[in-house]
Amino acid sequence: MRYELYYWPGIQGRGEFIRLALEEADADYVDVARRAESGGMGVPALMRLLNDDTVAHPSFAPPFLKAGDQIVGQTANILLFLGPKLGLVPDDEASRLWAHQLQLTVADFVVEVHDTHHPISGGLYYKDQKPEAQRRAADFIATRLPKFLGYFETILERNPHGDQYMVGAALSYVDLSMFQIIEGLRYAFPRSMKKSEPDYPHLTALHRRVSVRPRIARYLASARRLPFNTQGIFRHYKELDA
Amino acid sequence: MRYELYYWPGIQGRGEFIRLALEEADADYVDVARRAESGGMGVPALMRLLNDDTVAHPSFAPPFLKAGDQIVGQTANILLFLGPKLGLVPDDEASRLWAHQLQLTVADFVVEVHDTHHPISGGLYYKDQKPEAQRRAADFIATRLPKFLGYFETILERNPHGDQYMVGAALSYVDLSMFQIIEGLRYAFPRSMKKSEPDYPHLTALHRRVSVRPRIARYLASARRLPFNTQGIFRHYKELDA
Repeated sequence: MRYELYYWPGIQGRGEFIRLALEEADADYVDVARRAESGGMGVPALMRLLNDDTVAHPSFAPPFLKAGDQIVGQTANILLFLGPKLGLVPDDEASRLWAHQLQLTVADFVVEVHDTHHPISGGLYYKDQKPEAQRRAADFIATRLPKFLGYFETILERNPHGDQYMVGAALSYVDLSMFQIIEGLRYAFPRSMKKSEPDYPHLTALHRRVSVRPRIARYLASARRLPFNTQGIFRHYKELDA
Repeated sequence: MRYELYYWPGIQGRGEFIRLALEEADADYVDVARRAESGGMGVPALMRLLNDDTVAHPSFAPPFLKAGDQIVGQTANILLFLGPKLGLVPDDEASRLWAHQLQLTVADFVVEVHDTHHPISGGLYYKDQKPEAQRRAADFIATRLPKFLGYFETILERNPHGDQYMVGAALSYVDLSMFQIIEGLRYAFPRSMKKSEPDYPHLTALHRRVSVRPRIARYLASARRLPFNTQGIFRHYKELDA
């Protein structure tokens, strides 16, 4: 099965949680919007599928994944779908629900990270909502960052199968997402993370373990891994990391 | 199976999406935090389970559902779990993923509704973020409300099984959630909804159909249905409905 991933070509964004899973599993996939328009791909192919009014199950927004005739949208839902196929989640139903529950909490966190720089509107530039962003980011760093990271740290500590993985006794897509969260927070909020990350030793260790997995390390060193920038979810603005 | 729902007792909030599904299915459930503390329930029972550090799979926040030994958190995940058990989702895997994808889009919308009155911090009072709330609410009404409602309207229009249901040919938990969305928006933004709802005739019709289903009508007329108020997700502040 060749998977087609549809996501904006210039950012890691929400698509990155899917890319990491596909890369770790060495899956056959095409990152459609990053391929040449001349080959029928690129952003026009993404827009076509997003706006095609004959599609019965359109997605509200990218990312979405095409697997044969099936189109699946919503980041966490795509991972719910892909997890078993890629061997990135335990076999039993209860563990799969638990992994998905954690992924939905990751998704909630991602919204809050995004809204530090866009607290008023995604349709306005950052510079047009800067005072509000500074207020929201200060609250994020003081209250939300420790609440979410403390929660995820607890999950590792309490895992009955040991503190190496978020779910069960083997790597799952949730671990890959936690890697991305830590990586993104370090980029966006280096000063705050330097101060607070020592409180979350299990998360730091998980981040390191994921980063040196052969396929992940190879992916991160490749041109397929886009750099962080100030267009994505994790953005570095010095004044928001005070 | 007697389900135990854990959610804040004074608001509809996210718990309401679960309550509507349990009520429509006439399921055996206890709304734990609304029961008497003297019977070992009430908010202390909720806090106990939320803070019990022997729970291996704690939830980040309410609602969560206890079904025998299993605890499931995250609103959309609870509906993913309950849907098949309550007969509120089609049988095939593809339809279940599609229903869940829509429910996750409902969840995204709910965050944006909430943030109209709390754009800076959930830890501050509304009155401490009122100018920011007015700016965010104006953008919400101008751009996000039509984008989300337009999307959900399209889903009804394009349903290959007819425009009576969001998913397939029968009522699902997604329809119950759409009822709650329209009901909540009418409460919070009566002026804006009066103006814009004629653009979404399928959603209006779906809301009406759900509201007269015997079990839903009985529930809405009962003391189990909490009224909307200015503590929940949908809040009416006249200045935000401009």
